[in-house]
Amino acid sequence: FSTPVRRVEYNQEQQNFSVTVHNLTEDRMYTEDFDNVVVATGHFSTPNVPKFDGLETFNGRVMHAHDFRDALEFKDKDILIIGTSYSAEDIGSQCYKYGARTITVSHRTAPMSFHWPDNWEEVPLLTRVDKNTCHFKDGSSKEIDAIIMCTGYLHHFPFLPDGLRLQTDNRLWPLNLYKGVFWEDNPRLMYLGMQDQFYTFNMFDAQAWYARDYIMGRIELPDLETMRQHSQAWRDREETLEDDEQMIWFQGDYVQELIDETDYPSFDVEGVNKTFMEWEHHKHENIMTFRDNSYPSLMTGNPQPAHHTTWLKAMDDSMESYLKSS
Amino acid sequence: FSTPVRRVEYNQEQQNFSVTVHNLTEDRMYTEDFDNVVVATGHFSTPNVPKFDGLETFNGRVMHAHDFRDALEFKDKDILIIGTSYSAEDIGSQCYKYGARTITVSHRTAPMSFHWPDNWEEVPLLTRVDKNTCHFKDGSSKEIDAIIMCTGYLHHFPFLPDGLRLQTDNRLWPLNLYKGVFWEDNPRLMYLGMQDQFYTFNMFDAQAWYARDYIMGRIELPDLETMRQHSQAWRDREETLEDDEQMIWFQGDYVQELIDETDYPSFDVEGVNKTFMEWEHHKHENIMTFRDNSYPSLMTGNPQPAHHTTWLKAMDDSMESYLKSS
Repeated sequence: FSTPVRRVEYNQEQQNFSVTVHNLTEDRMYTEDFDNVVVATGHFSTPNVPKFDGLETFNGRVMHAHDFRDALEFKDKDILIIGTSYSAEDIGSQCYKYGARTITVSHRTAPMSFHWPDNWEEVPLLTRVDKNTCHFKDGSSKEIDAIIMCTGYLHHFPFLPDGLRLQTDNRLWPLNLYKGVFWEDNPRLMYLGMQDQFYTFNMFDAQAWYARDYIMGRIELPDLETMRQHSQAWRDREETLEDDEQMIWFQGDYVQELIDETDYPSFDVEGVNKTFMEWEHHKHENIMTFRDNSYPSLMTGNPQPAHHTTWLKAMDDSMESYLKSS
Repeated sequence: FSTPVRRVEYNQEQQNFSVTVHNLTEDRMYTEDFDNVVVATGHFSTPNVPKFDGLETFNGRVMHAHDFRDALEFKDKDILIIGTSYSAEDIGSQCYKYGARTITVSHRTAPMSFHWPDNWEEVPLLTRVDKNTCHFKDGSSKEIDAIIMCTGYLHHFPFLPDGLRLQTDNRLWPLNLYKGVFWEDNPRLMYLGMQDQFYTFNMFDAQAWYARDYIMGRIELPDLETMRQHSQAWRDREETLEDDEQMIWFQGDYVQELIDETDYPSFDVEGVNKTFMEWEHHKHENIMTFRDNSYPSLMTGNPQPAHHTTWLKAMDDSMESYLKSS
């Protein structure tokens, strides 16, 4: 720990990797050789921050979702949220719950399709800022106190040279990764969890299982051409997906494929998919109460206990208070 | 631009450097060779964040000075500032001006020696945090809404291998830099502005002038032993310094030495020192009004125009309003 990787290089002759790391505690760099490298750094650390005309004239707080900690500071404020994915949904809802005066959500492509409270508004993309006035693509404008960019993250691997570096946007099927894991040009390099996610830990775990089996020689990978065709087939299917439900089934099928080819313990992918569907359904029913629903665990079958207070009224988010209730 | 340096390596044989950079716009890395490398990245970017027991239980905002933008959010709050250097002084004063209820400043070594307003308090080092209660080394404690760490920065050069990397705390005379500029073990590598600073742009400029003269072959550097002795003599003097006035004269003398050995344009170092003294004097006279004083330019002799409003009453910090007045 406290030892970031500064550089990874592949040695063609020895067929291994030289990995240079920086021991920050001792402020010392050193290099060791490894047969395999697994990149599991995630891709929600380096904010994607788009530019908007006039933003430098804005008089209020501008932040990226990455820096959001607490909605209390936005009480009685007029908030602009840019983006429509989970961060926008969650941060907007938190600001609402803690008393933001109005929440305006600006979308590039389409509004989120939920029934928001009365002080919410969805507007097209921000075009320019002039002091506290935000102007939008439909010609409308609004006075805003704080701008929160829920504009996603960059896949960021500053320690990898061009030939080994995954370059992709956040999507369900990045190319160049066989089984979503193996760097096709050099499968001794593996990536875990680089997909846009519905499944999280289960998927990472199944990926790790597969990577482990390859490293231990239990699984042989096919030739490059076969790997590419396999990846392209998944990408082709990805491009036909039209809604969240289809995306969930897509990722469930992917996890199932990984599980089927290893001795990963039994795991009810269809059950998880159905819970996702139920959750999506609850969100569309009422975006302010869906968090109050409980679902049975797919691992143990046990129902999750209901929270002591409905989400909209539970103002204490501390870990202590959370653990006390369960 | 948008092209951070990822790695610098010295090639013994060719006596030059391979510099690997990352073009972020095209997400492409490439390497070029250079005869000399000048590191001028500054050292106020990577926060030094000390650990305190129980900080994870604190219910309010915790931030480093690096993230401070606006004191408005601290209106009516009880603020704890950790540290006693310029950031502590400036951020504390801003919070006071914008209506913080109380300002408590925690020091490791000694309090700042200024006459603070009545709602200021200086206390020994923070020992632990328990929810909103901050405990200090003298046994006292206080309820706090926000903690601002004015705890300085790290010299951070992740692109440099051990043998080329300056490792130092923030001080007037880091070792291993001949004339405060040349990496003694390999003077083709130069560092600008790595000193703790009273002089800023003038010093950087004089350093750059010296580095340029070396690169152009106008200045020959002595052998390693002579360089080391020269550095050690400055370090020995640095260690005798007892107050700000002595430190200012020390750095003035250093700038003068650089100027004397190049064709740097005439520059009134003694005059600058004296202005510094006057400024220090104004700070001790009244820490809340010292910013209202004007000083003549040492370059042009012109007096600086007085600001339109005294600092304590000037609530508009925008660039526009600043430029309008001058």
